[in-house]
Amino acid sequence: MAEAAAHSAEHRLADGSIRIDFQTEPSGYRHWRLAVDGDIATLVMDVDEKGALFDGYDLKLNSYDLGVDIELADAIERLRFEHPNVRAVVLRSAKPRVFSAGANIRMLAGASHAHKVNFCKFTNETRNGIEDLSENSGVKTICAVNGTAAGGGYELALAADYIMLVDDGAAAVSLPEVPLLAVLPGTGGLTRVSDKRKVRRDHADAFCTTEEGVKGKRAADWRLVDEVVPGSKFDQAVMTRAQEFAARSTRRGDGPGIALTPLSRSFAADSVNYGLLGVEFRRAERIATMTLRGPAAPPPTSADGMLGLGAAFWPLQLARELDDAILHLRLNELDVAAIVFKSAGDPAQVLAYDAFLEAHQDHWLGHEIRLLWKRVLKRIDLTSRSLVTLIEPGSCFAATLAELVFASDRSYMLIGNREGDNRPPAAIALADANFGAYPMSNGLTRLGCRFLANPSDRDAARARRGKMLDAETAQELGLVTFALDDIDWDDEVRVFLEERASFSPDALTGLEANLRFAGPETMESKIFARLSAWQNWIFQRPNAIGDEGALKRYGTGQKPIFDTRRV
Amino acid sequence: MAEAAAHSAEHRLADGSIRIDFQTEPSGYRHWRLAVDGDIATLVMDVDEKGALFDGYDLKLNSYDLGVDIELADAIERLRFEHPNVRAVVLRSAKPRVFSAGANIRMLAGASHAHKVNFCKFTNETRNGIEDLSENSGVKTICAVNGTAAGGGYELALAADYIMLVDDGAAAVSLPEVPLLAVLPGTGGLTRVSDKRKVRRDHADAFCTTEEGVKGKRAADWRLVDEVVPGSKFDQAVMTRAQEFAARSTRRGDGPGIALTPLSRSFAADSVNYGLLGVEFRRAERIATMTLRGPAAPPPTSADGMLGLGAAFWPLQLARELDDAILHLRLNELDVAAIVFKSAGDPAQVLAYDAFLEAHQDHWLGHEIRLLWKRVLKRIDLTSRSLVTLIEPGSCFAATLAELVFASDRSYMLIGNREGDNRPPAAIALADANFGAYPMSNGLTRLGCRFLANPSDRDAARARRGKMLDAETAQELGLVTFALDDIDWDDEVRVFLEERASFSPDALTGLEANLRFAGPETMESKIFARLSAWQNWIFQRPNAIGDEGALKRYGTGQKPIFDTRRV
Repeated sequence: MAEAAAHSAEHRLADGSIRIDFQTEPSGYRHWRLAVDGDIATLVMDVDEKGALFDGYDLKLNSYDLGVDIELADAIERLRFEHPNVRAVVLRSAKPRVFSAGANIRMLAGASHAHKVNFCKFTNETRNGIEDLSENSGVKTICAVNGTAAGGGYELALAADYIMLVDDGAAAVSLPEVPLLAVLPGTGGLTRVSDKRKVRRDHADAFCTTEEGVKGKRAADWRLVDEVVPGSKFDQAVMTRAQEFAARSTRRGDGPGIALTPLSRSFAADSVNYGLLGVEFRRAERIATMTLRGPAAPPPTSADGMLGLGAAFWPLQLARELDDAILHLRLNELDVAAIVFKSAGDPAQVLAYDAFLEAHQDHWLGHEIRLLWKRVLKRIDLTSRSLVTLIEPGSCFAATLAELVFASDRSYMLIGNREGDNRPPAAIALADANFGAYPMSNGLTRLGCRFLANPSDRDAARARRGKMLDAETAQELGLVTFALDDIDWDDEVRVFLEERASFSPDALTGLEANLRFAGPETMESKIFARLSAWQNWIFQRPNAIGDEGALKRYGTGQKPIFDTRRV
Repeated sequence: MAEAAAHSAEHRLADGSIRIDFQTEPSGYRHWRLAVDGDIATLVMDVDEKGALFDGYDLKLNSYDLGVDIELADAIERLRFEHPNVRAVVLRSAKPRVFSAGANIRMLAGASHAHKVNFCKFTNETRNGIEDLSENSGVKTICAVNGTAAGGGYELALAADYIMLVDDGAAAVSLPEVPLLAVLPGTGGLTRVSDKRKVRRDHADAFCTTEEGVKGKRAADWRLVDEVVPGSKFDQAVMTRAQEFAARSTRRGDGPGIALTPLSRSFAADSVNYGLLGVEFRRAERIATMTLRGPAAPPPTSADGMLGLGAAFWPLQLARELDDAILHLRLNELDVAAIVFKSAGDPAQVLAYDAFLEAHQDHWLGHEIRLLWKRVLKRIDLTSRSLVTLIEPGSCFAATLAELVFASDRSYMLIGNREGDNRPPAAIALADANFGAYPMSNGLTRLGCRFLANPSDRDAARARRGKMLDAETAQELGLVTFALDDIDWDDEVRVFLEERASFSPDALTGLEANLRFAGPETMESKIFARLSAWQNWIFQRPNAIGDEGALKRYGTGQKPIFDTRRV
């Protein structure tokens, strides 16, 4: 009993609310089963009605909440690292005649605005991760829709490469959010319908305004699914397609994977400590400082050495910890205005690890670690907190870690030393990874996006890769925002952080979401821009969330009452 | 006195509120002066403090409201049609040491959400029009910033090709919305800073969070302006640049222009009637039906004939009327859920006019008429009402008018005739104009966007241009959504319109804003998507518009109180 209480305290925040935990593992899944058979994995969605993350709703009909999606995201990561031999994945449901009813409506109706927004952001990232698994790791996904796939259920299917729908006169795909709930499909559905599946816009309009959705031949004719199969042949057809996809896979993985062992973490009132990452909260100032630690030892000398280290391999461990910390901040620490990135270590060692990964980028594990960093960095780009990197003596913002400098809204770099500090002045260093390995969601590298005006500036920076660049050089090359000496540093940084805490959080979210993504848009960035921004707007409108709004009145038997003005 | 009262009634809506009128002419301007000297025009902003559109605020320091922007938009149109010899435009202020303080804050604080959104949409379209004038008509714009250009004032400058800032130690450009008002710059500022002027993102972050803005050399170094000039040399430098730009202009216009004579309009309780366009309101059903009338006579036989007709030339008259009607609906008829497009006339005549315009596309007037249609159609794409086209016997949706079919969320086409109707069955017809002349804001033609999945479908449609396509053929080619016979027509159309009126207006706005724009994004579409959707969200948030929010408290001496949660 005492232990249960202790456990419970560990899982609560200072204010008593539940700490949402993004760490799980297959033995702890309540909603999914991951089975691997040769080169084909099956991910079975079997949501435990009583396993909701919060009180007040049951997860009926494979409806989901953030807890369900955390398990899905975990399973996808494990396919990458623990099952390098898997070449195709079948997503299916264990519920008869139901694939998934989508995001739980009662959960959405009761959730805070911030939770809804962050829930959608995370589920979007998970689905982007499924597509990345296909595009960059060669693991093709088939979604076997055995019945109703409504709203978020169909949006999950849309993340797959290939959607198969049973043809039994009842099974249908639908996006009934607009007619039923007065909101948009929140997990990329509209953009994937228009931009991935390229459904004609008038068909998409008819589809998205039809509560009961579309079934059978029309679903295929309108490009909403790839194949419609009679019920008697469905399971066999799914397996045949999975084998075909696996056979065509370009995945290079082989042999046993590595175990994604539990992260070493400890939560305290004003800090979270990981093995390689410390997070400290200065709550009065609304600042979280993340200090990333560089490697303690040189990289291994071979791929086998990397495999042997497994989850303890420095770049992998740090990426997983950073990802968990960002998600923790997003969902559990809403009051943090700004994240300050710092680092401690030897930049030469970081460069050495990057050279190792560069040399082993064709090894399945090296490849997956780079892809993980790419996704973690994208998650940072999409985090609605002001981001600043402070580059001081003793820091190691080199190569992959230098991406944090470029992901930040601003960076400050100290010129020279502080009195009494004998360490060498701060230096940053670039590597090949900064010029291609980590595209943002708009398809550009951070340096490509930064130097949109003059690509030659990017090339000038590129020519200096491998060199230790001091503050003045870094500023001259346009790599940091402000290079300051000891006299100005404290005031400048303090004023910046005070400003960020004093401005409207919403205005900053909008400002940063615009300035971080200059240049082109991709399907992915459109989901986080055009689609999500509109959805967030609708999530604020009384027609959806007011007491007479559709989200609140759904299932009550009362019709919603709308303000009829079109805006 | 009686006449004044009658005049006043004509300018009010049924509910007594002011009808915002988008028609004006230079002699009626209160805020701008348009002067033309040879090939250089000067547009002088000299806002009349007492000339606000609504009560409750004064337009101090060249701040503006929608009324000011309606004059600007009108002036730009007149440069196109009435002054074909103009090759460069100088935008300047008549106020000493102030260019413009931007959108009036008291106006924003008092305006309804719908007004704010539509105000920003219109001002964005006006600025896009200035850029279109440069890009497609060869009229280059110089903005002479003689003092403070804050917020919307700087955003107006950003629409110019070249920004000149006086260097007097005080003049500065700024986007102080985030720190001062807790909103975003609402007229494309962030996107133009990042995507047009390609300001480095950390510089942009610093700029947009600095109330007082940036002046002098730093403004040029950060790419915020193109040139900084000492006060004593400013006027001369501006004129020199204007002459240089005019000399490099590719504009082909010559000789006198045509007069954009006042539109013939009459407003009644449930209709607006123009010469070639009728708008009828079925208020109980929340529907506006727009019926466009085809040409009554064949096109002229020469460019001189077109010039002689001037504003009465069928395509020009209809485009101006349609533009005015759409703007009237947007701002004055908020309760309209859906716009139904109908047409009446001979499709062969419409094709003939399109062939005429195609043949005269290199004539300055033919060119400008095509560009006007492009902008009107874009305005329709961006109108937050459900759009449907009904194609029935007697209609003339051919060539340019067929774009309304493709701009609509859905189209219905009648197969055959109705009993007792001896007219030939409905036909639509395509022309070259449907395959290039009218790109959407995302850069694609409507048919290119429609057939994103299979460009060969677009080519198949193209091969049939000039042919009268009946309903079944049009459906087979994918040009209409549903081809229906007389038996199904009434019910299907009625159900569709009832549905649209029953759904949440906000959800429909979000749905349509996403489904209408498949494929790439451009700077222009980013402004209407990423930027505007975020801005609309912020315009709903208590941190901006609540009683303790920044927009409400600005100028009261009380600091705003923010909900500090980052979302």
